[in-house]
Amino acid sequence: MTLGIAVVGLGGAVGTTMAAGIELLRQGAIDKRGLPLAEVNAGVAAYEDIVIGGWDLFPEDLAAAAEGHDVLTHKQFVAAEAALSQIIPWEAVADTRFSPLVDGSNKVGGTSHRAAVEKISADIGAFKARYDSVVVINLASTERSGRGFDSLAEFEQALDDDSPEVSPAMLYAYAAIRSDVPYGNFTPSQAADMPALIEFAKQRGVPIAGKDGKTGQTFIKTVLAPALRSRGLHVDGWYSTNLLGNRDGLALSNEDSLASKVATKHSALEDILGYPVADHIIDIKYYRPRGDDKEAWDNIDISGFLGQPMQIKVNFLCKDSILAAPLAIEVARCLDLARQRGEGGVQEQLSVFFKLPMTDGGRPQHAFHRQEEMLIDWLSA
Amino acid sequence: MTLGIAVVGLGGAVGTTMAAGIELLRQGAIDKRGLPLAEVNAGVAAYEDIVIGGWDLFPEDLAAAAEGHDVLTHKQFVAAEAALSQIIPWEAVADTRFSPLVDGSNKVGGTSHRAAVEKISADIGAFKARYDSVVVINLASTERSGRGFDSLAEFEQALDDDSPEVSPAMLYAYAAIRSDVPYGNFTPSQAADMPALIEFAKQRGVPIAGKDGKTGQTFIKTVLAPALRSRGLHVDGWYSTNLLGNRDGLALSNEDSLASKVATKHSALEDILGYPVADHIIDIKYYRPRGDDKEAWDNIDISGFLGQPMQIKVNFLCKDSILAAPLAIEVARCLDLARQRGEGGVQEQLSVFFKLPMTDGGRPQHAFHRQEEMLIDWLSA
Amino acid sequence: MTLGIAVVGLGGAVGTTMAAGIELLRQGAIDKRGLPLAEVNAGVAAYEDIVIGGWDLFPEDLAAAAEGHDVLTHKQFVAAEAALSQIIPWEAVADTRFSPLVDGSNKVGGTSHRAAVEKISADIGAFKARYDSVVVINLASTERSGRGFDSLAEFEQALDDDSPEVSPAMLYAYAAIRSDVPYGNFTPSQAADMPALIEFAKQRGVPIAGKDGKTGQTFIKTVLAPALRSRGLHVDGWYSTNLLGNRDGLALSNEDSLASKVATKHSALEDILGYPVADHIIDIKYYRPRGDDKEAWDNIDISGFLGQPMQIKVNFLCKDSILAAPLAIEVARCLDLARQRGEGGVQEQLSVFFKLPMTDGGRPQHAFHRQEEMLIDWLSA
Amino acid sequence: MTLGIAVVGLGGAVGTTMAAGIELLRQGAIDKRGLPLAEVNAGVAAYEDIVIGGWDLFPEDLAAAAEGHDVLTHKQFVAAEAALSQIIPWEAVADTRFSPLVDGSNKVGGTSHRAAVEKISADIGAFKARYDSVVVINLASTERSGRGFDSLAEFEQALDDDSPEVSPAMLYAYAAIRSDVPYGNFTPSQAADMPALIEFAKQRGVPIAGKDGKTGQTFIKTVLAPALRSRGLHVDGWYSTNLLGNRDGLALSNEDSLASKVATKHSALEDILGYPVADHIIDIKYYRPRGDDKEAWDNIDISGFLGQPMQIKVNFLCKDSILAAPLAIEVARCLDLARQRGEGGVQEQLSVFFKLPMTDGGRPQHAFHRQEEMLIDWLSA
Repeated sequence: MTLGIAVVGLGGAVGTTMAAGIELLRQGAIDKRGLPLAEVNAGVAAYEDIVIGGWDLFPEDLAAAAEGHDVLTHKQFVAAEAALSQIIPWEAVADTRFSPLVDGSNKVGGTSHRAAVEKISADIGAFKARYDSVVVINLASTERSGRGFDSLAEFEQALDDDSPEVSPAMLYAYAAIRSDVPYGNFTPSQAADMPALIEFAKQRGVPIAGKDGKTGQTFIKTVLAPALRSRGLHVDGWYSTNLLGNRDGLALSNEDSLASKVATKHSALEDILGYPVADHIIDIKYYRPRGDDKEAWDNIDISGFLGQPMQIKVNFLCKDSILAAPLAIEVARCLDLARQRGEGGVQEQLSVFFKLPMTDGGRPQHAFHRQEEMLIDWLSA
Repeated sequence: MTLGIAVVGLGGAVGTTMAAGIELLRQGAIDKRGLPLAEVNAGVAAYEDIVIGGWDLFPEDLAAAAEGHDVLTHKQFVAAEAALSQIIPWEAVADTRFSPLVDGSNKVGGTSHRAAVEKISADIGAFKARYDSVVVINLASTERSGRGFDSLAEFEQALDDDSPEVSPAMLYAYAAIRSDVPYGNFTPSQAADMPALIEFAKQRGVPIAGKDGKTGQTFIKTVLAPALRSRGLHVDGWYSTNLLGNRDGLALSNEDSLASKVATKHSALEDILGYPVADHIIDIKYYRPRGDDKEAWDNIDISGFLGQPMQIKVNFLCKDSILAAPLAIEVARCLDLARQRGEGGVQEQLSVFFKLPMTDGGRPQHAFHRQEEMLIDWLSA
Repeated sequence: MTLGIAVVGLGGAVGTTMAAGIELLRQGAIDKRGLPLAEVNAGVAAYEDIVIGGWDLFPEDLAAAAEGHDVLTHKQFVAAEAALSQIIPWEAVADTRFSPLVDGSNKVGGTSHRAAVEKISADIGAFKARYDSVVVINLASTERSGRGFDSLAEFEQALDDDSPEVSPAMLYAYAAIRSDVPYGNFTPSQAADMPALIEFAKQRGVPIAGKDGKTGQTFIKTVLAPALRSRGLHVDGWYSTNLLGNRDGLALSNEDSLASKVATKHSALEDILGYPVADHIIDIKYYRPRGDDKEAWDNIDISGFLGQPMQIKVNFLCKDSILAAPLAIEVARCLDLARQRGEGGVQEQLSVFFKLPMTDGGRPQHAFHRQEEMLIDWLSA
Repeated sequence: MTLGIAVVGLGGAVGTTMAAGIELLRQGAIDKRGLPLAEVNAGVAAYEDIVIGGWDLFPEDLAAAAEGHDVLTHKQFVAAEAALSQIIPWEAVADTRFSPLVDGSNKVGGTSHRAAVEKISADIGAFKARYDSVVVINLASTERSGRGFDSLAEFEQALDDDSPEVSPAMLYAYAAIRSDVPYGNFTPSQAADMPALIEFAKQRGVPIAGKDGKTGQTFIKTVLAPALRSRGLHVDGWYSTNLLGNRDGLALSNEDSLASKVATKHSALEDILGYPVADHIIDIKYYRPRGDDKEAWDNIDISGFLGQPMQIKVNFLCKDSILAAPLAIEVARCLDLARQRGEGGVQEQLSVFFKLPMTDGGRPQHAFHRQEEMLIDWLSA
């Protein structure tokens, strides 16, 4: 059974790493390290049966893209090069009003929202014709947050009106749902996370999930915070700073995109602890010396017995795409499994993969070990 | 209902902090921060109804001890001073063959094992006469590890023979069990963790638990490691170093005591991950500038997707006694609850409090969140 | 020989720590640790002969202020309390246009620039009448940067016109120089650092120096950077972040004040290295859990032989006032020595004490060890 | 003018990096980053005119060695491969009594000290015949420390007697001096650092220098410590730990070699500060996940004004060979310059390159900026 993953923002570091990783797994050149569900046996697609395609603003093939991102080792690049060079991104839908710092030439120009949806749908359709099933995963640069639409009717009216409040991520999500293809949002962009599209997904029985992949700092945060709470240790302040030098970092140099990103990182902590942390500061800096490597430094001020203060500092030297790519693959496999099981609408059991888990109205679960339990229960159902 | 906690090593930093904390809670001068079970309502003794007593090699009252340990703030010291000055340690049983670097004057001299047991039992008996129930908690300096005794008969023979393989911690544990008083071991010393005394505790229906309080570095380790495993991130190396300047640190300057301590810190990681970590290094240094403050620095080398390496570094600036004292109190409350419920033998559901959880034969559970679940299930039973 | 130090912003954490420290030195309760010129013997005033006075927006005496700042240990507070309670700040000159987040009641209200200068001069005059010599040191909260005045004539005209471009720090500096009293600026505020007042100081032969005390992060930066240059190690990026919870931190929450502060921290690095560092990022966050404690985290990306990248991370857990107070005292002693020696104008040999050393036109020297040499040469002249 | 550098331990990571770097400089493939004397113009050999040769226990050519060490990027390896494959190590003199954990097949077997000296001298002679001048640099694994010989006569007697107290490093040093070739010791081994060989070098007018290259942690230590002293900040404790995964790390797993290494790292701090630091702890751990990358973590406990404690933590993620190779090259160029200038004996002006600078009797200078001054003065003489 083949599974096609259609990636929005395919040529970025995460998308090319997904494609390279799948190819190297197929060759047996790497093991399944970093893939959380490597040992799960629940009807999900085999990694070797996955095919990667998608859209990007830059027209270069994935071998060229991979060379630029410099994520693969030399040996891995050589092994994957031929396969990657066959993957050419489709023309993307873009809007600099939502991502002002990222633009490219490989896009459908000056088109209406409805024409954009048709274009995306046609791409999805052609992809679906070739594989047993298809999932759309959003890995595009973060958009500034827009307003959500409260009903499908309102959203469709905005499409008809070419409203400036409809962003590209919303168009992709809408087109995927309309094509009966599951949609996962690995970015902080709003995309399907609004009543209008949740309603649409439920109506059509299409699984959707998001948002914002929980890769580095927030992963650690949602692991540590529940344990601090369990020990009765009070969090007096939590300062989180991030250094990031890749295309995502550049996009986040834009203040509105940053605000959208930081917002998704904020809520987890208070939800887990059960009280507001007055001094919870999150910072993200575009810092080029790191390239795709990413660094997080967290300082946690806690107080314990007798009210006495202590500190925990966590310094995570990670690789953005190395952490994100396998999670995006797992999200796609799980969304496809949900489709097989006939489960439409928001897939809350995938919360463990997201910084800001989408829900169908309730409060999200942020504590890592509880999210994990939800997923394990669902997989073994 | 009053609960007397008889502490072995009462005058140490943890014991005095327990006593000071209970007093300050009674006065309403501090809140219940740092006490993991502050909100549990399951028949455990109220903090305000706890009374602290115990043995120590140094004869000074706890106000004098607290001044030396310098754990309390000035304000806290002033508030607790009168009460602390009323607490005078009982004469202790000691043996420099097991803790060569720690010795004091307040001890029963040159006595036989049997006489030592009678002495301890008499102290426990006098304490029991004054409070509704009593628990013994071991907070004494780490002993070098000895050989365990395989049967009660063998152990009792060794008592009769004044065998040099019977350590003070074993004598305290034996005396507590014989007195039908629950026994918790917050140190890495062997104490009750051997077939002989586990058999004895089961036979008499006395709850016992241990060993080595999980306060700082190992707490963090058992929180992070399960999450790394969940994410499929492979641990290539884990280097843990500790700086510690208090009496415990001095005791650990002795190589045999250190070996005993490090051993209890080692097994948790591999048990959680499910594979051996070839480069798992644990170091503890006696470093006086810190006094009772303690610092842990962990460097974790992991590899993820595509086998690529990343690092997590955790720097925990903690206070040994501030972390340990509330856990020791909770262990005592839980052991007393087990006694009320008539549950004798090893209390595995208290694993969350220990670096090396005692079991009645099975492998211990080390993952923090699973340990926590075990405890919550038991408390709400 | 008594030396009176008139402090602008006396009641702040640094000012009260200066006063407490002098008192404790006089009592013999502390040693001369942290005082860089403790062993210098060059005609400077003895620490014991120093008297602290000055202005503050808050009327509370220094004992009350010290209690609030929580810098002293309990023992130190008790020892210094009587003396500190005798020091009452004089009414200050303030202007919320320059420091919008800091305001208090102890100020001369709605007065003209000329009247303010007269008020300050009168305070200085009264202080001078009591001690052998007097120095003014600015420790007030950082003002947003204004425009500098190019000539004394222009500045005096602005005084006459009550120009909104004249800040309180300028008025204090002007008044000090007019009173023939040396003036040192330990803050990033512009104050005397403009042609108009440098001209005035030279004309009257009054020593001046500044600006912005080099206490923590920039101290370390100007120590490390010259060594990196010596080793041929290229700085690809330097990310500096600061957590600060005291009144200074609050003032820096104001964007304009922050900009003024960050600017003074920026130039040192490039001047030392001799090339621009494209990714030199400096951040300061107001983070209350720390109070007067201050934390700096620096990440330095360097490349060496074969162009290969390496990293140095420095984490400085310091105490702002503990580092600043002794330097402010040394600046005052040196300015007084310059006065004794008849040296007016900018005292560049005091560069070692400042983040952004004032010069009389040339480029400042930033490398710590070269600054130190300049000072030693001058002292031993 | 060609300069031949004959390296003891040529096939190690540092030796191969030297050879690769010289080749890449010759090709113009890298810039002079990381070479401290890149801009010095004082009669030293041009980098492009340097030729690398030497001895090693392993017979593989430097291309094979470089592949194993994994220091070069893929591109650098490809560019240097042909040249490196031409460099074949000469048979080495070894003695497992001095370096028990490192042994190989490429050695002269079971020979007498005198025969070993002749063998080394012959290699040097052949090398000298091909280049304008030659320098010997010791980069071999650390030997356990032996006893020093007090006079040349005594040492030569020991040679005659095949004394077990004469180590390989001493034989190389002796042979170099006898061949009138300058000798630099980049390791902690004793080698020429004893009265016997210092006397010999002076007698023959041969420049010698050492010992133990100051690359990472000690470099930072000797930069920071003088600045702490200048600020009057008292060092209460300094804890230094190192993680190292290459062949050097393995050699240091041997306790005696470690003791020798740690000793050279210890003295610098006290010499700079002028007082003993009671809690100065240095640790080196063999930790394989790092390979040639090296990590140092320093924790510095200081106290300042009012005796209050603060902490500085430095985490240096460095690459051992990338830091060491250019320094070893500079040592060779400077020793050759000394030879040209006719300066024999210990070259103290090269102290900046060494952890434990050799002197001709006096105390060594450890402070980095003072060492640098000495070197600059000499170069510009």
